[in-house]
Amino acid sequence: MKNTYGNHIAITLFGESHGPSVGVVMDGLTPGLPVDDAVIADFLSRRRPQGVISTTRQEPDAFVIESGVFNGKTTGTPLCIRIPNTDVRSEDYTDIERLARPGHADLAAHCKYNGFEDYRGGGHFSGRITAALVAAAGIVMPALEKKGIRIGTHIRRLGGVEDRAFLEVSADIDVLHTNFPVLDASAEERMKAQILAAKDDGDSVGGVLETAVVGMPAGVGEPWFDTLEGLLSHALFSIPAIKGVEFGDGFALADMRGSEANDAWYMQEKPVTETNHNGGINGGITNGMPIVFRCAVKPTPTIAKEQHTVSLIDGEDCVLAARGRHDPCIVHRAAVVVDAVTALVLCDVLAGRFGTDWLGEV
Amino acid sequence: MKNTYGNHIAITLFGESHGPSVGVVMDGLTPGLPVDDAVIADFLSRRRPQGVISTTRQEPDAFVIESGVFNGKTTGTPLCIRIPNTDVRSEDYTDIERLARPGHADLAAHCKYNGFEDYRGGGHFSGRITAALVAAAGIVMPALEKKGIRIGTHIRRLGGVEDRAFLEVSADIDVLHTNFPVLDASAEERMKAQILAAKDDGDSVGGVLETAVVGMPAGVGEPWFDTLEGLLSHALFSIPAIKGVEFGDGFALADMRGSEANDAWYMQEKPVTETNHNGGINGGITNGMPIVFRCAVKPTPTIAKEQHTVSLIDGEDCVLAARGRHDPCIVHRAAVVVDAVTALVLCDVLAGRFGTDWLGEV
Amino acid sequence: MKNTYGNHIAITLFGESHGPSVGVVMDGLTPGLPVDDAVIADFLSRRRPQGVISTTRQEPDAFVIESGVFNGKTTGTPLCIRIPNTDVRSEDYTDIERLARPGHADLAAHCKYNGFEDYRGGGHFSGRITAALVAAAGIVMPALEKKGIRIGTHIRRLGGVEDRAFLEVSADIDVLHTNFPVLDASAEERMKAQILAAKDDGDSVGGVLETAVVGMPAGVGEPWFDTLEGLLSHALFSIPAIKGVEFGDGFALADMRGSEANDAWYMQEKPVTETNHNGGINGGITNGMPIVFRCAVKPTPTIAKEQHTVSLIDGEDCVLAARGRHDPCIVHRAAVVVDAVTALVLCDVLAGRFGTDWLGEV
Amino acid sequence: MKNTYGNHIAITLFGESHGPSVGVVMDGLTPGLPVDDAVIADFLSRRRPQGVISTTRQEPDAFVIESGVFNGKTTGTPLCIRIPNTDVRSEDYTDIERLARPGHADLAAHCKYNGFEDYRGGGHFSGRITAALVAAAGIVMPALEKKGIRIGTHIRRLGGVEDRAFLEVSADIDVLHTNFPVLDASAEERMKAQILAAKDDGDSVGGVLETAVVGMPAGVGEPWFDTLEGLLSHALFSIPAIKGVEFGDGFALADMRGSEANDAWYMQEKPVTETNHNGGINGGITNGMPIVFRCAVKPTPTIAKEQHTVSLIDGEDCVLAARGRHDPCIVHRAAVVVDAVTALVLCDVLAGRFGTDWLGEV
Repeated sequence: MKNTYGNHIAITLFGESHGPSVGVVMDGLTPGLPVDDAVIADFLSRRRPQGVISTTRQEPDAFVIESGVFNGKTTGTPLCIRIPNTDVRSEDYTDIERLARPGHADLAAHCKYNGFEDYRGGGHFSGRITAALVAAAGIVMPALEKKGIRIGTHIRRLGGVEDRAFLEVSADIDVLHTNFPVLDASAEERMKAQILAAKDDGDSVGGVLETAVVGMPAGVGEPWFDTLEGLLSHALFSIPAIKGVEFGDGFALADMRGSEANDAWYMQEKPVTETNHNGGINGGITNGMPIVFRCAVKPTPTIAKEQHTVSLIDGEDCVLAARGRHDPCIVHRAAVVVDAVTALVLCDVLAGRFGTDWLGEV
Repeated sequence: MKNTYGNHIAITLFGESHGPSVGVVMDGLTPGLPVDDAVIADFLSRRRPQGVISTTRQEPDAFVIESGVFNGKTTGTPLCIRIPNTDVRSEDYTDIERLARPGHADLAAHCKYNGFEDYRGGGHFSGRITAALVAAAGIVMPALEKKGIRIGTHIRRLGGVEDRAFLEVSADIDVLHTNFPVLDASAEERMKAQILAAKDDGDSVGGVLETAVVGMPAGVGEPWFDTLEGLLSHALFSIPAIKGVEFGDGFALADMRGSEANDAWYMQEKPVTETNHNGGINGGITNGMPIVFRCAVKPTPTIAKEQHTVSLIDGEDCVLAARGRHDPCIVHRAAVVVDAVTALVLCDVLAGRFGTDWLGEV
Repeated sequence: MKNTYGNHIAITLFGESHGPSVGVVMDGLTPGLPVDDAVIADFLSRRRPQGVISTTRQEPDAFVIESGVFNGKTTGTPLCIRIPNTDVRSEDYTDIERLARPGHADLAAHCKYNGFEDYRGGGHFSGRITAALVAAAGIVMPALEKKGIRIGTHIRRLGGVEDRAFLEVSADIDVLHTNFPVLDASAEERMKAQILAAKDDGDSVGGVLETAVVGMPAGVGEPWFDTLEGLLSHALFSIPAIKGVEFGDGFALADMRGSEANDAWYMQEKPVTETNHNGGINGGITNGMPIVFRCAVKPTPTIAKEQHTVSLIDGEDCVLAARGRHDPCIVHRAAVVVDAVTALVLCDVLAGRFGTDWLGEV
Repeated sequence: MKNTYGNHIAITLFGESHGPSVGVVMDGLTPGLPVDDAVIADFLSRRRPQGVISTTRQEPDAFVIESGVFNGKTTGTPLCIRIPNTDVRSEDYTDIERLARPGHADLAAHCKYNGFEDYRGGGHFSGRITAALVAAAGIVMPALEKKGIRIGTHIRRLGGVEDRAFLEVSADIDVLHTNFPVLDASAEERMKAQILAAKDDGDSVGGVLETAVVGMPAGVGEPWFDTLEGLLSHALFSIPAIKGVEFGDGFALADMRGSEANDAWYMQEKPVTETNHNGGINGGITNGMPIVFRCAVKPTPTIAKEQHTVSLIDGEDCVLAARGRHDPCIVHRAAVVVDAVTALVLCDVLAGRFGTDWLGEV
């Protein structure tokens, strides 16, 4: 069991919500990838809290590249990005020393770490850690795009409000790199209304994120056990609040017949499928069609409403009403994190398939 | 990218559907675990085809333990189980050399292996390989059970017919170790009717498998990236036809509010939750409640109906109508495979947490 | 801790000296490599016992390729080679149940495996397992050679008798693929005399193996921690009896000054060094010059002479005089094993550097 | 190929000699280990340059623990230590852009990283990186010592001057945690004289480090391929200038007979050996005796004397005379680095054997 992801380009995250910094070390990067601070900053801005629908904790997300970049390009040696924590109010979390917040990792972490965990703000379980993930994606995403591999995630559903599905995948991806990514522009207002309604109730909402990838070469993945589905889901389930991952039509396939679920092949210069019920992956391996998957995001567990729970100190039954700053919804903020995780997983498998230098070759 | 699963107890599968044998090597096993051939045989019998609802390929699944067992106990050195293939009719598959079967890995594998793959019967992608997985579980499952860790999988849905959900999880598991595991006995007949109806139409059906684990200690898993959800899903997506994995209420959580989705804690000797919407896992780490997850199983891609596809030889558009022996449904046969994968993943993480010898300690 | 080597092409060994078979699973192989049974058989014959200077155990080393080969070529899926054990006389080893053989792994294994190890003939620690390693090399060595990468090992010293060092490395390698590889043909007789002298005394001798590799591209290896020296030594120390590994001038460098030890660069189409004190590796990474290293092989621990030891059963002090069949020297038999391990390590790092298909590209 | 070491407690190093900082991330640490800044500082001081026998680059080695420590104890989440670089004079290294320093990694790195490497001061290949390794050892060494596992390294030979071998290993270790560790106090002056003599000649000297470990439990290591010898050597070869590793009597065993090399067992409460020619390891697994090994350290490649080399820019033959600050000998400074690497490797294997919490249990 490890806190590192990847066999070829490996990602290790460190940091606690209320510690000095959060950060990431990326090992195995192709040398010579251009590193643009503005791209990293743009990625970070997409996960930053946004006004009334988000927490009031404001982190500038200034980052320092400690290693692995020279003359504006990756060197190929481990690249460390560090993001100092600044707007920390640890006093808000003194109760948490005592109370297991329902839906959070507090009790599980207490058992795992024998009580030595840094519980302030969720510690190493905090969504804050995803800032480092997103910064890491800022290193590799431009290189993926140069190879024609593009990734986009939209809010497929939020608080019961539906966005439309992907239609023209490549064109759809173009419009998604925003703070609140939807394909049907009219969905944004209705979704935000759901967030505010939940906030007013001292409650929170969840949703479904849908991701598409175009341009992946066919033939990437392993049958047992490093299927592309397995590798992606392995990494995606680390994103806080994700409780389900499905590929192609996913759970809907369970109610289809084979004649509906199969994607018929035909020639269009190369073999393509008429439909994409399998989400671009057969037998765990890319088939050249767009990769499509969805992640279920549960509602933010931190809510203002009173909840029953127990004390981690003395095992007494208690009542908790969250103070501190929190998000009534993190679905929209998680979209760029899903993009980032997807980019990092794909870079890893592509480096395994085509070697160290491939990502930098034009 | 690897065809091995596990950091502590590692599982490597080998074999092709129409090759000499399929098999598994298990590395890192606790020494001294009793090995009972009858248990392995029983596991294998649960995934074997069953009469009219299954393929007519009949494999006795005789197995040979090549290494790692001495005097009826595991030695702790790599344990190899080999299962010879016998009822092979490769002549049925000559067309496959030419045609990419829709819904199968043929085209993806052709791209990955540059045309050198053994395509007969799906080769290394065949469900036949799961026989080795199931045999491997026959080694570790009795040891898990001695530690009080029990695993059960039932057919939650098949061809649109629902089984009831888990209620008393521990008692429910007791009834599931059969060839057609359901909790509501009346569901079996209706599900089988769906299978036969599909078969009559030259078609196939899918379903949903639901799995529960009781007895897992709290505090197992890592936050980034080896969450228990990530580790389980990584391995589960290798099982052919699985296209979605969700934990606890999974995708249904997306439409809940935080106050519904959170599981309140209270004391009952130790902290327990009133509900289990999170499926026994918070922040990627076990919380001591039963682990519950569901896998979406797509309908068997091999169907008798005609389908459009392309030739892998000359890139011509073609029509395929499957010959050969195939299953109109593999949902019920996959249940024991899910049990097996779950057992192997749990053994791996438990060995990582508690060391090499823990599984054998009484 | 694992019984698998390699991140890209991974090798797992299984089997016990007196079990049904020994074998290997190779994962990550390039698809399309020609597999020639005669090459594998030739490799196996080079490690087979030879007349009076070896054990009288005679294994035909018939092997079965269980998976991963189709139409005479690797498929790219896990390739399993199984070598059945036949000439097993377990009765010779009944004493071993009681006595820890000095210089052998018996006591260490007893502690590690809690007494459950298969102790017959050394079990999984037996040199017999290297047959599977050598067979595995028979798969990849021809592919390496097609890429211009050639490996040779000679007996640099045996029982105090010296062979000459490598001079014209590439030409020297040509003469080494024999049963008793030396560069100075006159050394063979004198070395064999030492073996027979030791045998007559009920004793054994050791030696030093020296290996050279030509044709490795420059720029392969990692600085921390997967240096090429680290990767090679990691694997080489598994070969029974190897107790030291040194690169270039190795321990002799400790007594040089920098001005002697440094290898000056000059241009000869590409940069080359005047000397090769560093054995083709700088900073853990290949520099394009021949890789040269030496392995210290201790004398075979099994000897006929009486030795003091203890019983593993009752902890009593005892006297052991080995029965059974054993080698008075394994240095010459280990040469092809060092070749094999070297080939497998290089394939792994080359696959990591250049991708899955590189080894098969002409 | 990775820049991470360890399966259970994993160490990733980052940083370049002339970048913002060097650092380490440790993943998998036991929660609750006390962290004492003074211990870390003491470790760092042992590798710091010392007066006339060392470089004049003076780094205060102030360190920041960025994560993984809370209330003075490890949390069990990834622990990042960052050591800012301060005394950087990059202008000394402008020539290096052009010239491959003989004995250094410059040319190999140039090939590996396609010219994108940070060449200043050796970049990621610099001995400076070992500061992070040594700091990491400051976290785990006190915990190892509490478990009775103690590690000591002395300068066995330097510039031809010999120190005595280990005699009473445990007592000998007590005197070694100094800046210039020798067992025979009289050796220090003579060794230092050799260093100064080389310095006066614009040259450098090498030597041999000898390490002993007491208190390791028997039964740790794997036969194929994670032998303790393999794991230790894998990590040790990353230390710059190490070109050979031998265990027990190492290369001297090659010239012994079996009756000399075998270590006879006898009972002394538990089984112990009369001699320790095998260095506490049989078959790759600890046997309960002290672990003893030696590392060959080549002379520092940077020397003031003129050397022939080539330009990395235009491939011209050139002459190099090193400017900049450098050590005429790094053998003494490397001793604590060998201690550190040994400690980290042992923690990793012990965590694998006994689980996550073992190191913290008293």
